[in-house]
Amino acid sequence: MIVVMKQEASHAQIVNVTVRVEQMGCQAHISEGKERTIIGIIGNGRPLDQAHLERLDGVERAVPVLRPFKLASRDFHPQDTIVPINGVSVGGKKLVIIAGPCAVEDREQLLEAAQAVKDGGAHMLRGGAFKPRTSPYSFQGLGEKGLRLLAEARRETGLPVVTEVMAPEQVPLVTTYADVLQVGARNMQNYALLHAVGEAQRPVLLKRGMMSTIEELLMSAEYILSHGNDRVILCERGIRTFEKYTRNTLDISAVPLLKQLSHLPVVVDPSHSTGKWELVSAVSKAAIAAGADGLIIEVHPHPSRALSDGAQSLKPESFNTLMAELQAIAQAVGREL
Amino acid sequence: MIVVMKQEASHAQIVNVTVRVEQMGCQAHISEGKERTIIGIIGNGRPLDQAHLERLDGVERAVPVLRPFKLASRDFHPQDTIVPINGVSVGGKKLVIIAGPCAVEDREQLLEAAQAVKDGGAHMLRGGAFKPRTSPYSFQGLGEKGLRLLAEARRETGLPVVTEVMAPEQVPLVTTYADVLQVGARNMQNYALLHAVGEAQRPVLLKRGMMSTIEELLMSAEYILSHGNDRVILCERGIRTFEKYTRNTLDISAVPLLKQLSHLPVVVDPSHSTGKWELVSAVSKAAIAAGADGLIIEVHPHPSRALSDGAQSLKPESFNTLMAELQAIAQAVGREL
Amino acid sequence: MIVVMKQEASHAQIVNVTVRVEQMGCQAHISEGKERTIIGIIGNGRPLDQAHLERLDGVERAVPVLRPFKLASRDFHPQDTIVPINGVSVGGKKLVIIAGPCAVEDREQLLEAAQAVKDGGAHMLRGGAFKPRTSPYSFQGLGEKGLRLLAEARRETGLPVVTEVMAPEQVPLVTTYADVLQVGARNMQNYALLHAVGEAQRPVLLKRGMMSTIEELLMSAEYILSHGNDRVILCERGIRTFEKYTRNTLDISAVPLLKQLSHLPVVVDPSHSTGKWELVSAVSKAAIAAGADGLIIEVHPHPSRALSDGAQSLKPESFNTLMAELQAIAQAVGREL
Amino acid sequence: MIVVMKQEASHAQIVNVTVRVEQMGCQAHISEGKERTIIGIIGNGRPLDQAHLERLDGVERAVPVLRPFKLASRDFHPQDTIVPINGVSVGGKKLVIIAGPCAVEDREQLLEAAQAVKDGGAHMLRGGAFKPRTSPYSFQGLGEKGLRLLAEARRETGLPVVTEVMAPEQVPLVTTYADVLQVGARNMQNYALLHAVGEAQRPVLLKRGMMSTIEELLMSAEYILSHGNDRVILCERGIRTFEKYTRNTLDISAVPLLKQLSHLPVVVDPSHSTGKWELVSAVSKAAIAAGADGLIIEVHPHPSRALSDGAQSLKPESFNTLMAELQAIAQAVGREL
Repeated sequence: MIVVMKQEASHAQIVNVTVRVEQMGCQAHISEGKERTIIGIIGNGRPLDQAHLERLDGVERAVPVLRPFKLASRDFHPQDTIVPINGVSVGGKKLVIIAGPCAVEDREQLLEAAQAVKDGGAHMLRGGAFKPRTSPYSFQGLGEKGLRLLAEARRETGLPVVTEVMAPEQVPLVTTYADVLQVGARNMQNYALLHAVGEAQRPVLLKRGMMSTIEELLMSAEYILSHGNDRVILCERGIRTFEKYTRNTLDISAVPLLKQLSHLPVVVDPSHSTGKWELVSAVSKAAIAAGADGLIIEVHPHPSRALSDGAQSLKPESFNTLMAELQAIAQAVGREL
Repeated sequence: MIVVMKQEASHAQIVNVTVRVEQMGCQAHISEGKERTIIGIIGNGRPLDQAHLERLDGVERAVPVLRPFKLASRDFHPQDTIVPINGVSVGGKKLVIIAGPCAVEDREQLLEAAQAVKDGGAHMLRGGAFKPRTSPYSFQGLGEKGLRLLAEARRETGLPVVTEVMAPEQVPLVTTYADVLQVGARNMQNYALLHAVGEAQRPVLLKRGMMSTIEELLMSAEYILSHGNDRVILCERGIRTFEKYTRNTLDISAVPLLKQLSHLPVVVDPSHSTGKWELVSAVSKAAIAAGADGLIIEVHPHPSRALSDGAQSLKPESFNTLMAELQAIAQAVGREL
Repeated sequence: MIVVMKQEASHAQIVNVTVRVEQMGCQAHISEGKERTIIGIIGNGRPLDQAHLERLDGVERAVPVLRPFKLASRDFHPQDTIVPINGVSVGGKKLVIIAGPCAVEDREQLLEAAQAVKDGGAHMLRGGAFKPRTSPYSFQGLGEKGLRLLAEARRETGLPVVTEVMAPEQVPLVTTYADVLQVGARNMQNYALLHAVGEAQRPVLLKRGMMSTIEELLMSAEYILSHGNDRVILCERGIRTFEKYTRNTLDISAVPLLKQLSHLPVVVDPSHSTGKWELVSAVSKAAIAAGADGLIIEVHPHPSRALSDGAQSLKPESFNTLMAELQAIAQAVGREL
Repeated sequence: MIVVMKQEASHAQIVNVTVRVEQMGCQAHISEGKERTIIGIIGNGRPLDQAHLERLDGVERAVPVLRPFKLASRDFHPQDTIVPINGVSVGGKKLVIIAGPCAVEDREQLLEAAQAVKDGGAHMLRGGAFKPRTSPYSFQGLGEKGLRLLAEARRETGLPVVTEVMAPEQVPLVTTYADVLQVGARNMQNYALLHAVGEAQRPVLLKRGMMSTIEELLMSAEYILSHGNDRVILCERGIRTFEKYTRNTLDISAVPLLKQLSHLPVVVDPSHSTGKWELVSAVSKAAIAAGADGLIIEVHPHPSRALSDGAQSLKPESFNTLMAELQAIAQAVGREL
């Protein structure tokens, strides 16, 4: 942490800051400039709170030097983490494609979708049984019945299942049926839920909140890691901006940045980030070209009948075409599909 | 809902849309323009899903006409809602000032703060026992011990207590001690929590998410209202923008807009929206001038020792000065303090 | 400037940074921490370029310590600047209300509007002769004819005139007719224009760009000041966010922040920031309560016939009501109207 | 345009809207729903102003149906536009790579950079002689001397030159030396400049403003096209968001969206969008995979000595590596490099 004093800060105020810093078990180095005095703080900087320091008399601002995450950091863990999921590995040379409908709607829809994405070459099945919906009047998902259908689809296709968990008390139930627990964008800072999945015996797919910085995403991963679960997959799914033609704005730079800052695997959701199926193909290819370890794509056998997010779902034929195109991109960046 | 067809849409595609609309129990009115055909949908528009319609062949986009909230809407409930809380009323002519520390830290700090804000003229006490913190390494609050201290502070001062609840399973416990359940900004779209507080026997203070629209805030209020709890207080606390000098950007227009769109009372949090105590006074006065029904302000007896958010907390003397200034503003807009 | 080295930075890389810093005429202070080495740079920090330093081998990032503006800074000029404009003073105890139509449309409209705002108590007249419009097919303003009408309205009412200048070569022409040159939000970083108005013999009203930071606004003011024109009035007019119910989001905190960081007067534009006349009154009162030195408000005698921005224009009666309400707020904050 | 009336709108207010619409030469179709009356407006919708209609009594809001751009629209011009520039074609099957330093600094730097990018396989040379800089104290470019050096570099390498023009009065001068006139992000809505380059005899590279929507970018292109210049190249260079690790957020979806909405070629600037040279390679590959027609990349022979934007410039060796990698991506998407 570095403390920048106000121009008019008195000597007594400067001394007071150094005394406080030393009380916290750190060392203070004073640099007196022409216009400002700067105090560098040496020691284990993490317990220091920026807001604390900024409230001391004479302080203009405090600037953190260290990244606030540790277990999620590549400094701490230089090798890539590879998350094994019943025969599929996320984070290695081979790309992982997770596909399926937004929501589980009924047995026929799910089994048809599961078979279609399996035939297209997907490695895992997605589908929501508990759906976070902006409106209390929208379809909220089939709940446990949906989980049972997902388990049936897994038996039929052999594809491991990713599904969302929305509350701490749902974790045991969802763990019974799912191979990967998904934490949705709206819950990225639901700390009670992060705590619960951190203690669960399943890998976690953690989606970036639409309002969250890359640093906050890594801090939420840190919550899960610090509770003992080291099988975390990060997911970039678009952030909220002023642009109105797309549902969200995919932050493509987040892919190489996350790979640089962290050892955790990174997948991209081209469906939610754009909200338009016509853009899914271009954005999927971009994500793989940028270094993503996989994709999570909405595919619905009959999008115009979908109970949620039909406008962003691919038909099986488009998914098949996309998989062929991704093959070429994967090779171009030295990956396999 | 209005459906705009693509320029090249065929007659068959237009007919298909009208057939679908009628299957949903609505009526379709076709208007053929030079460049586009538009289909107006009449009926109870709410069950229609925009994404559905946008996935039909030949459709360019669908535009919702009705606001998606109903119970929260002033159309539906023209009179102002007044929320009574143990002798305090939120939403009437009299403004309500809620003040206290960010977090309950210990008995001495809380009782000193409670007495100070009571002496300054506050009507309710705030203080967090469960703290949502970005970092798993930061102080997470005293939990139930903090709740017991809040109850003690209420006994000592007579001030009703507002405190945050972070997970559905905490609702019964927090309800035992608190007069108002606060749903924090990060949990504004935690639907399991909204469901739980919707069934609780306590008023709810619902904070706008830092990247949530006004419409989404009202939809989250709709969740609570639709589960039977009609004592909801809305709170504008700043949204996330590109500006870096402040922690968030207070959306001051949200105050008159929410009062126009909804019957629910609106309070403003000047502390979190700015993140700087020097700005709290100016922003508090602005909020009251814009028509807010109250404020929720961080006050700490010793901000430089605070375990969280010290930089945005007022000292008791500054709070006293602010209360005197607010008196004048309240009169100027025909309110009482 | 503070330089944070990478964890793995070598001794040679650290030495290299210090050598470069000293070549630039500054001094380097090294602080070696457990996880990172930090280099504080002392001297006249402004000529240092952050990007330069960040490109040196082993550097993780560079953090500026000093604000990059000087002439616009209150550190440099502690007293409030008061801008005198033909008998009106902006920045003193008395508030200044600038009102009039968005665009000058014809003689009758302008004279009617000018008389109406004068009768309502306005101190200056606004009206655009050159209009920046998103579409090349929209009304672009009357040009010089509009300027002549503004001069006529000034003769009739005695109100000084504020009008926009859009290009360097228009500056001499607009200076002939106007009392204040307005630089619009879209031109806040049009440096050729800032240079030109910096050399003009007229006060300048500088509007904040809709996606500009407070620091960038002050840097644009610095351009004007550094070319010799010290009569600059800053204008907060709303920034672009994800919120869709309003045209822009008024950054109310910018008012006290700008007054704290700078000595220049600050006015607020409640019309463009909200885009809805129903919100203008509440937001105007908030701006004055927050410490603004004045307002610039759109008033049109017949908003539903306006050629631009009718939806955000007040009718004269609403303007009169607002002026009465502002009187009370002005008193409440120790100002006069 | 569709007009949504307020719930309480009277019959007379509805009739009034239809009368006004017909006065504007359009037809009005009324649809009466249970909760709202909707008026569809048929005719040439472009001269209608949304703000006008929203100011009529009883109107809740007006919703535009048609895209406001025409000449830039693919509806109007279905074939891809290909812009020929002295032997290079932008917009065809062959990708175009524009590379060079941010600013022209001196003869040696420019000629070294030009030769390096030519050797690496670039098709055009970039370099700024007039530099828009946030601070009046930063290097503002060499001006005409820089233009002469660019012309010399062209003679030496045969590469056509792209350089920025910042003001209408600079257009004739820059046209003398440059092959393509660049309009920078900060000037995207400088309408006087758009008008001037619209009349110039040179192709224009139009950068998206960091605060601008895709629709606004196309409207700015429309300005240029409507003044007679149909050789416009669109450039996505990142937008401003709340994310702090990158300078801007590249809107990757803008690439396929612009290609769908418009016939104009689209290039991507990976240097300004990220602000970090380490991310340039990943983002460049993503842009080509998403369908961009080319890239504009900063390359500097000695980035740590650069007078501007050194942190985002590639060294020649990194540029060479990137070109080889792009070759593979180009093939994978059926393009040539």
